[in-house]
Amino acid sequence: MAVYNVMEDIVKGIIADQLDYLHLSCTCPRCQEDILALSLNKVPPTYIVNNSRQPLVKAKYMVNTQDYANTVAAVAQAAAVVSANKRCVTIEK
Amino acid sequence: MAVYNVMEDIVKGIIADQLDYLHLSCTCPRCQEDILALSLNKVPPTYIVNNSRQPLVKAKYMVNTQDYANTVAAVAQAAAVVSANKRCVTIEK
Repeated sequence: MAVYNVMEDIVKGIIADQLDYLHLSCTCPRCQEDILALSLNKVPPTYIVNNSRQPLVKAKYMVNTQDYANTVAAVAQAAAVVSANKRCVTIEK
Repeated sequence: MAVYNVMEDIVKGIIADQLDYLHLSCTCPRCQEDILALSLNKVPPTYIVNNSRQPLVKAKYMVNTQDYANTVAAVAQAAAVVSANKRCVTIEK
């Protein structure tokens, strides 16, 4: 059974767009994955069955500025938590 | 970036276990995927980064009977909705 949470792509896009503004102490792949997982646990999932409808669902989501703003806020909160509690190996001295 | 929603496996397991008790009008793969997607949109996601921790997270979830009961209830509700609104091609006359 294959289902897709459209929020995964949306949050990945926000992390990529906002990376320079999140003031991260580390931007390694592990820290970005931690931010992604933490953010996805804070925003309501949007699962679909038919992946070809993903662009339509994403577009509908993007025009809903309040939902989008809530998601950006969730990413910013997750970034602050991960930045303060890095689990990656590259802990700069 | 690879993250996993542990709830996907948990809900798949519940659908498989409960299939005979959900009184579905159709049990085709498409209807089961619709039930999976609808259920996952109703239960809080549990995303993790490290897939090797999936069994541990699942086990912690299963012992929390209230969360588990809530998830079974979400699956039952989703099954009722899908049963009444089949989107698969095999609509029996």
